[in-house]
Amino acid sequence: MEASTILIAELADKARRAGRTLTTATSSERKGALLSIATELENNVSKILESNAQDMVRAKTADMHPQMQDRLLLTAERVSSMADGVRQVAELPDPLGRVLRESTLPNGLHLKQVSVPFGVVGMVYEARPNVTVDAGVLLLMSGNAALLRGSSSASSSNQVLVTVMKEALAKTKISPEVIQLVPSEDRESVRALLHARGKVDLVIPRGSASLIRMVVDESTVPTIETGAGVCHVYVDEFADFDIALPIIINSKTHRPSVCNAAETLLVHRTIADSFLPQALKALDGAGVILHVDAKVQEIAKSIGVNTSLATDENWCTEYGILEMNVGVVDGVDSAIDHIAKNGTNHTEAIVTQSQENADRFIALSDCAAVMVNASTRFTDGEQMGFGAEIGISNQKLHARGPMGLEAMTTTTWIVTGTGQIRR
Amino acid sequence: MEASTILIAELADKARRAGRTLTTATSSERKGALLSIATELENNVSKILESNAQDMVRAKTADMHPQMQDRLLLTAERVSSMADGVRQVAELPDPLGRVLRESTLPNGLHLKQVSVPFGVVGMVYEARPNVTVDAGVLLLMSGNAALLRGSSSASSSNQVLVTVMKEALAKTKISPEVIQLVPSEDRESVRALLHARGKVDLVIPRGSASLIRMVVDESTVPTIETGAGVCHVYVDEFADFDIALPIIINSKTHRPSVCNAAETLLVHRTIADSFLPQALKALDGAGVILHVDAKVQEIAKSIGVNTSLATDENWCTEYGILEMNVGVVDGVDSAIDHIAKNGTNHTEAIVTQSQENADRFIALSDCAAVMVNASTRFTDGEQMGFGAEIGISNQKLHARGPMGLEAMTTTTWIVTGTGQIRR
Repeated sequence: MEASTILIAELADKARRAGRTLTTATSSERKGALLSIATELENNVSKILESNAQDMVRAKTADMHPQMQDRLLLTAERVSSMADGVRQVAELPDPLGRVLRESTLPNGLHLKQVSVPFGVVGMVYEARPNVTVDAGVLLLMSGNAALLRGSSSASSSNQVLVTVMKEALAKTKISPEVIQLVPSEDRESVRALLHARGKVDLVIPRGSASLIRMVVDESTVPTIETGAGVCHVYVDEFADFDIALPIIINSKTHRPSVCNAAETLLVHRTIADSFLPQALKALDGAGVILHVDAKVQEIAKSIGVNTSLATDENWCTEYGILEMNVGVVDGVDSAIDHIAKNGTNHTEAIVTQSQENADRFIALSDCAAVMVNASTRFTDGEQMGFGAEIGISNQKLHARGPMGLEAMTTTTWIVTGTGQIRR
Repeated sequence: MEASTILIAELADKARRAGRTLTTATSSERKGALLSIATELENNVSKILESNAQDMVRAKTADMHPQMQDRLLLTAERVSSMADGVRQVAELPDPLGRVLRESTLPNGLHLKQVSVPFGVVGMVYEARPNVTVDAGVLLLMSGNAALLRGSSSASSSNQVLVTVMKEALAKTKISPEVIQLVPSEDRESVRALLHARGKVDLVIPRGSASLIRMVVDESTVPTIETGAGVCHVYVDEFADFDIALPIIINSKTHRPSVCNAAETLLVHRTIADSFLPQALKALDGAGVILHVDAKVQEIAKSIGVNTSLATDENWCTEYGILEMNVGVVDGVDSAIDHIAKNGTNHTEAIVTQSQENADRFIALSDCAAVMVNASTRFTDGEQMGFGAEIGISNQKLHARGPMGLEAMTTTTWIVTGTGQIRR
């Protein structure tokens, strides 16, 4: 622990000092650095693939899950698509120096609140080498120095990618030391990073729910929680069924593994008999396993659709696969009660033609995004037009919902006077 | 611990449910509730003073520090000024429902990011009964339910103030249960509050540095750190001395006990001999005890001003009284090095006529507010025109610098469609 603490402090201090070359760099100098990184990635494909091959050998020996092996694997095509991603970030609007508020006080003081970098940002992530580049350039573009802590199973890949990025920076005015790779041999380096309060300004976890949980629980450095999504679609008594059906199917089946997929369908009691038969048939037809309440089961039985009774655990489970809960509720307030008990404050949808019910649902939903007559799948940085997405914040402090580059900035007040003092 | 955890969970659930009457209330209904509270406070002065007298008796028996007794004491005048404060908050612009971003996507989806309440906010504070009302109404106006945990030494006063506020709310459409007083008999209730992640959305500490430290270190609920200010004034080689001198004196002596008071003066080496004699004389004349570096001591000796050599500890001490460190530096970068090592990222001032040096100082200062040719004392919500100030955030996440009502809100995306699904 002791040695890790010292090491992290050293890396953070080095990164912070180097970060000055970033905060004083112009927007075009930062963009230039990104383009230099993109080129350098393309120029070093074989070197990168060689190092990645070493990780792959270890992964196979260790019998890593095939899906994880696929995430670990780099190919010439994947490296080239990484480089393209870097160029896309370079084209985004500069998140720094945005003037958020500005005024001149009666005493002549000029006030300006502008966006500035956090400083030193730590990233903790799993065996996906693309995150090393992705996070590295997003932080660079937002003026932040980066402490990157990936998985030990990707250590050779991460090492070469950081080396290539540093070589690219060496050709610019920005110090290569703004990107630091944190050793991943032991877990002590993660612990030390999470406890480097004062040295590191922010830590962002990227990966599985358990990784995020661990970071949020353990960290004394401020973090941004991303992730868990138990999203609901509530079909109101005043719903247009022709709209409701595709929204349900899309919310559940378009990409079940992601956090903005729906897990639970709630239907107003007065339309249960008219709407549920078609909804259950459609879900069943799409291969969705159904966990339902007693009322829904009754209807399902009458149309020959297989279901099982939902347990308390079912209602608050993020399935990530083709399974869904279906329940009947007595209206907006009853739907909200259910959501408050079982949801994760991510995305909730209402399907209704009643503006009054939509407004009440919006006012009572305590979540990052409310969809009115639209699929839950739209809670997404790219869909919302942000360009790059760092993640979807599931917390209320600082950023909520999809986070673009702007979420990687804080603010400062610049107060300019001519000698004003307080009276 | 177990009992406290259950109690806090119950209070939080009750507050959250009651909070629905707040989130669905209009702006004028919330304002009306505040005005009702103001009236009720004035109508119950004698009852309030009676309860406060019980706290005062205990305080005297316990030999409480006179300054703390003064903070605990309520008078008819103080209650009336509390009520006035409540009316002022009622007049502030509504922090809820502000549209932060809005757009229509090519697929016809309408996106709107609006400000919404956090939900349930905990306040942890010391023996100042005015905070009970102050925090209660600021949270109410920003749509948040409040869990108020004051000091046990103010328990009678807090009890009566919360009762009076609840009686006022009972006359409105807002549920009195949006304000909950957390029992203060033991410290377990604080611990339980700080660990009520998921039940409580945010905890804000108000009070001494040690209270804030305890809350920030202990809490698993998100917090906003307020407080510590080791602020610097850097007098550049291109400073106008006539401006520099009043800024230094004002920053140090106008109200030394507050966080935006300056603790350290840094002077550019090339103007040390010309500027320091007048600066040291002025500070000495104002009764400021001086901790200095060797170069400054030499100059001080030559003009007969008493100083002591500053220790490492001096340079990073928030004195809060008439003591100040004075040192010589080699320029902007050297000043920034000193500040990075010893400062608290609160407020830093530069006095210079060089725009280039001011710009570099701004870019490299990693703080909530940078003053150019102005006193550090201007980092203040009221001075900056925010109206009520909840505190000065000393963190980078969510809010930085003086926090008004807006800082007590988070955001939600409202996405309105006509049946759009992801392709």
